[in-house]
Amino acid sequence: MGFTPRSFVKSSKALLLLPFLLTLLLVGSQGESNAMDNVATERLAEESHRQDSANLLIFIMLLTLTILTIWLFKHRRFRFIHETGLAMIYGLLVGVILRFGVHVPQSMSDVVLSCAVNASPATLLVNVSGRYYEYTLRGEVSRGKGHQVQDDEMLRKVTFDPEVFFNILLPPIIFHAGYSLKRRHFFRNIGSILAYAFMGTVISCFVIGLIMYGVVSFMKVVGQLGGDFFFTDCLFFGAIVSATDPVTVLAIFNELKVDVDLYALLFGESVLNDAVAIVLSSSIVAYQPAGDNSHSFEAMAMLKSFGVFLGVFSGSFALGVATGFMTALVTKFTKLRDFPLLETALFFLMSWSTFLLAEACGFTGVVAVLFCGITQAHYTFNNLSPDSQDRTKQLFELLNFLAENFIFSYMGLTLFSFQSHVFNPMFIVGAFVAVFLGRAANIYPLSFLLNLGRKNKIGSNVQHVMMFAGLRGAMTFALSIRDTATYARQMMFSTTLLIVFFTVWICGGGTTPMLSFMSIPVGVDSDQDHSNSAVLDGSQRRNTKHESAWPFRIWYNFDHNYLKPLLTHSGPPLTATLPACCGPLARCLTSPQAYENEGQLFDDDSDFILNDASVSSMYADVTVSMDASGRTINRSSGPRGGPSDEGLDHELALAEHEVAIRGTRLVLPMDDPVEPPTTVTLPPPPSPPRSEPRRHRL
Amino acid sequence: MGFTPRSFVKSSKALLLLPFLLTLLLVGSQGESNAMDNVATERLAEESHRQDSANLLIFIMLLTLTILTIWLFKHRRFRFIHETGLAMIYGLLVGVILRFGVHVPQSMSDVVLSCAVNASPATLLVNVSGRYYEYTLRGEVSRGKGHQVQDDEMLRKVTFDPEVFFNILLPPIIFHAGYSLKRRHFFRNIGSILAYAFMGTVISCFVIGLIMYGVVSFMKVVGQLGGDFFFTDCLFFGAIVSATDPVTVLAIFNELKVDVDLYALLFGESVLNDAVAIVLSSSIVAYQPAGDNSHSFEAMAMLKSFGVFLGVFSGSFALGVATGFMTALVTKFTKLRDFPLLETALFFLMSWSTFLLAEACGFTGVVAVLFCGITQAHYTFNNLSPDSQDRTKQLFELLNFLAENFIFSYMGLTLFSFQSHVFNPMFIVGAFVAVFLGRAANIYPLSFLLNLGRKNKIGSNVQHVMMFAGLRGAMTFALSIRDTATYARQMMFSTTLLIVFFTVWICGGGTTPMLSFMSIPVGVDSDQDHSNSAVLDGSQRRNTKHESAWPFRIWYNFDHNYLKPLLTHSGPPLTATLPACCGPLARCLTSPQAYENEGQLFDDDSDFILNDASVSSMYADVTVSMDASGRTINRSSGPRGGPSDEGLDHELALAEHEVAIRGTRLVLPMDDPVEPPTTVTLPPPPSPPRSEPRRHRL
Repeated sequence: MGFTPRSFVKSSKALLLLPFLLTLLLVGSQGESNAMDNVATERLAEESHRQDSANLLIFIMLLTLTILTIWLFKHRRFRFIHETGLAMIYGLLVGVILRFGVHVPQSMSDVVLSCAVNASPATLLVNVSGRYYEYTLRGEVSRGKGHQVQDDEMLRKVTFDPEVFFNILLPPIIFHAGYSLKRRHFFRNIGSILAYAFMGTVISCFVIGLIMYGVVSFMKVVGQLGGDFFFTDCLFFGAIVSATDPVTVLAIFNELKVDVDLYALLFGESVLNDAVAIVLSSSIVAYQPAGDNSHSFEAMAMLKSFGVFLGVFSGSFALGVATGFMTALVTKFTKLRDFPLLETALFFLMSWSTFLLAEACGFTGVVAVLFCGITQAHYTFNNLSPDSQDRTKQLFELLNFLAENFIFSYMGLTLFSFQSHVFNPMFIVGAFVAVFLGRAANIYPLSFLLNLGRKNKIGSNVQHVMMFAGLRGAMTFALSIRDTATYARQMMFSTTLLIVFFTVWICGGGTTPMLSFMSIPVGVDSDQDHSNSAVLDGSQRRNTKHESAWPFRIWYNFDHNYLKPLLTHSGPPLTATLPACCGPLARCLTSPQAYENEGQLFDDDSDFILNDASVSSMYADVTVSMDASGRTINRSSGPRGGPSDEGLDHELALAEHEVAIRGTRLVLPMDDPVEPPTTVTLPPPPSPPRSEPRRHRL
Repeated sequence: MGFTPRSFVKSSKALLLLPFLLTLLLVGSQGESNAMDNVATERLAEESHRQDSANLLIFIMLLTLTILTIWLFKHRRFRFIHETGLAMIYGLLVGVILRFGVHVPQSMSDVVLSCAVNASPATLLVNVSGRYYEYTLRGEVSRGKGHQVQDDEMLRKVTFDPEVFFNILLPPIIFHAGYSLKRRHFFRNIGSILAYAFMGTVISCFVIGLIMYGVVSFMKVVGQLGGDFFFTDCLFFGAIVSATDPVTVLAIFNELKVDVDLYALLFGESVLNDAVAIVLSSSIVAYQPAGDNSHSFEAMAMLKSFGVFLGVFSGSFALGVATGFMTALVTKFTKLRDFPLLETALFFLMSWSTFLLAEACGFTGVVAVLFCGITQAHYTFNNLSPDSQDRTKQLFELLNFLAENFIFSYMGLTLFSFQSHVFNPMFIVGAFVAVFLGRAANIYPLSFLLNLGRKNKIGSNVQHVMMFAGLRGAMTFALSIRDTATYARQMMFSTTLLIVFFTVWICGGGTTPMLSFMSIPVGVDSDQDHSNSAVLDGSQRRNTKHESAWPFRIWYNFDHNYLKPLLTHSGPPLTATLPACCGPLARCLTSPQAYENEGQLFDDDSDFILNDASVSSMYADVTVSMDASGRTINRSSGPRGGPSDEGLDHELALAEHEVAIRGTRLVLPMDDPVEPPTTVTLPPPPSPPRSEPRRHRL
């Protein structure tokens, strides 16, 4: 065999690229013919493809098994473990088998060609005897294990690119969460939810980060630390384990029909939590390079991180809402509803484009997708044909189910298949304590503060359940597996896995006993619950109205008078709400159905997405001061200004009144200029029986 | 800057790998710090991800636009262009814009690192300052254009890995075709369809191959040929352009309610066509290496190719059917139907696993998926809950729609974005002529031969329409883009694109005029058509029965007596059909519903998938000799043997009778031992009015 050095120099316009443009010397066998090389190359690619198919098949089989077991458990009404817990167990089993049972002989697919260069660009071009092959960066292989690579090729093969989670598996899960959000209960508790999600997550992140920094410092002193572990790493760890998972516990809550407010608090918090944690963690990463070598505290870097957080979050939010609006407009102004297939396809594509758009703009796709889901549910859903409503609902339900179970079974598998685990007992114990304390520092102080202002107090038993129900799941896992290059990240990843396993199995499995121990009412019909709570805090409502309700009243008016009529067929016609000068525009934007269908639309509700009437009644809980007379004022007489100051109070009074009426499901086409004035006798206050006969399922 | 050579030697157990295990010398700048490298690497990966998102976004936007335009066309009842044609036009426009309009400045993402080695393994490990990055093979970059790569990076970026088509986009399309196959009409014309699909495709392949070989030889003489073009390449070209597309024309046929037999012939042919063409093309590729340098005809290689064809086709067929059976068994014996989400998920996963299993075993996933779809429709569909039936139907309809439009818009885009087009006017003209003649050599001679044996002659106008309607679409494109490494393949690809454009636009657009020109009856209710055809060929039926029907009669009996009862809840209980010795097993395998629901099940039909009753009546067209008496014999008395020779005739007579009765929708629980013997008076032969009030939509 002759060694023929061959050099290949490339010129580049960009100076930045200079260090990467390397000339490599070929040191290899040139004896074989070109044809044989091609055949061998093709065979290799084929072999690799077969291997990939087989690996994916393992996961499909795992999921199939999980589905069958879930069915068995549901069939036999076992509740001690959730489907995600099952998926993890199966994943664990397969991981054990792959790790210890299977010894695949070194095959053609396992070819590892090593070139040693000093950079890892996203694209690599390999010159094979004059033919160029393009390679794409898959990720970093664990450091210092280069010599072992061939031995655990099989294990490395079943390892997915971590970006798969962010780009393929998480988006449908998060979108589904937004799309299936029970907006009525969500908005009723919006203040508390935002407090838990934003302040709580930040508190939890810093508490965990500080505790872990203490633990790590102690480990360094004791000599237990095998590598660098900076304060930013600790904070990063705090951010990723602060994301709670909405899946497991809430599925049980749903089945048991737990108190709706507890449900809304937990679900809302978990959903927004994920968004906050992902942006928070990327902000912390953005902080890191500024500290570069020192890794010490810097005010400027801190400010920069904060700016990144705000920018990324609001950007993602805006993008998500914008595409939601666009979809609503498109579905409103086309007669696409005659073709449910086209409509569903459009809905799916637009929702997906949110994600891609956000990623392409440098924002966070997952966060954008969450707010897109909420917007789609609030506006677009009303424009869809009933067939498409079912289709989209079922489609995202299926995608969510598959993605979720895939992630959890992968989680189980990765405990054994991941090759760079760093299990440090001290770090693990510290992390468990920190996670517990972090959650406590989130729930209890915030609940205390919120209870100061809340009409409907968050009871101590509810607080304990919220504390207990803070499971860690898909988002925590995805964030921790995203980067496992350094020692610190590897230790974090291993510890995170254990935290997820523990919380899903122990906390998830213990939810039912916990609920009965804490004497949380189960089997509550949301119907009854409402009339009760209405009775209880009817007196407090007036007190909190002025402090907390005004932003929501403004938003409600804006939404009801402008956004709803603009984006859907419901609500008052824009011709009535916009100032007279915008007359032609308003006529152009108002759909004919706005005049005809207004009343009718309130009835096409589902247990999945609550419609206009429900949303109105949710505001009722916050803002309504009941008017005993039962009088109805026809608002259609004359054009009215926008949110002008003098008109606002009157507007609000009217809106409140209307809301109260709607809350009782007596739908009045108040804003319809065609209808004559209607008079309805209301049941006497203070307990309007808001009838909500539907069960609330996730 | 210092040049630090660094060698990295890897040991391998497999001797085969020796030539690939190269030691590369690092020749590059080592001056930068490790940290800066990492940051740069991360930034590169991020940049690349953003670019990828933006590229995918282009396609999503394209699809959205297509959907809106489709709606507009449907809304305004334009029929001159199909949605796929529209998708192509939009793709073309974007391709033009990307090619000539956008000049993206060289960005960080465009880093091309070139190592020159003599092999291109599937996995490449790059050693960057002690950290190992894994790269996966993405594909070959056009030969000899290495110096241009940086300039048209943008265009290369929007180019997908051709395997995406085979692994992601084609499977749902083909599965949907199988799942939505109108089995009644399909099986009624099964003989003709198989003849067109197998013999026809092979004839077409060889005719086109021979003509192209003539063209290529002439081009070589004239000096128009810029590279090698072997006979096997010509045959390969023949195989890939022989795959006709079921989409465009049939959508129009569906809307116009064209004659059901013509529809069945075309749809059945197109669907099986694809399977034959893909296996045929891989057989031809398998032939190639044997001829190695000579590329001349070799009997042994030919036989080997034929063996490959048979092996791959039957293997894929068996796998597809096997997973279909498995799904049917699982859905039958579990009460999964109580949970539509789980059921749908299982259905989806099992169908996907067919593909992966086939690919992992070295068979053709797309073919396996086709037969899996047919099996799922025939058996599993009956076991699903009505909710899941809708869900699966809608899910695959959506996936099919998205995948199809994606492929067609990508096709449009690739005309401009693909960088190695070889447009040779002589080759293109030759190819168009060859494709035309190949189609003619498929349809006309085979139709003549088939008409000799067919009761229901294929009229010359029907033949002309079949000739005209042989559009080339997704499969042809996917096969031709799969390998564009050599000059021959590049020329094929460019020519194939033009053929697809031409057939989709001209033939697809001209379908409606063609139908009226050929005076094909449109607006035919399949109902009427049946009673007509029953009258017309009642006399011929007896003649053709004995030649062509026996394999189907045996199959029908087997299916009806054993497979249906085993795999679904319908059909006679296995206790009645299996021999007495298998009693316990039969009791175990027969579901309770088999006794109860037998009659009921015949009624839960849909226009999407025809159920048992329809399938029975389809056999009726082939096999029934009507028994005038109307007598019914209760078959449940006494155990009967399996397909024993002496019992078979009696069995068949009974089956035929039953079929005739079923054909008239008078459902008799003949094999039900619980029911007393029933007597029904049949309408007099020879024209049983088979009532089929349902519209047939795809």
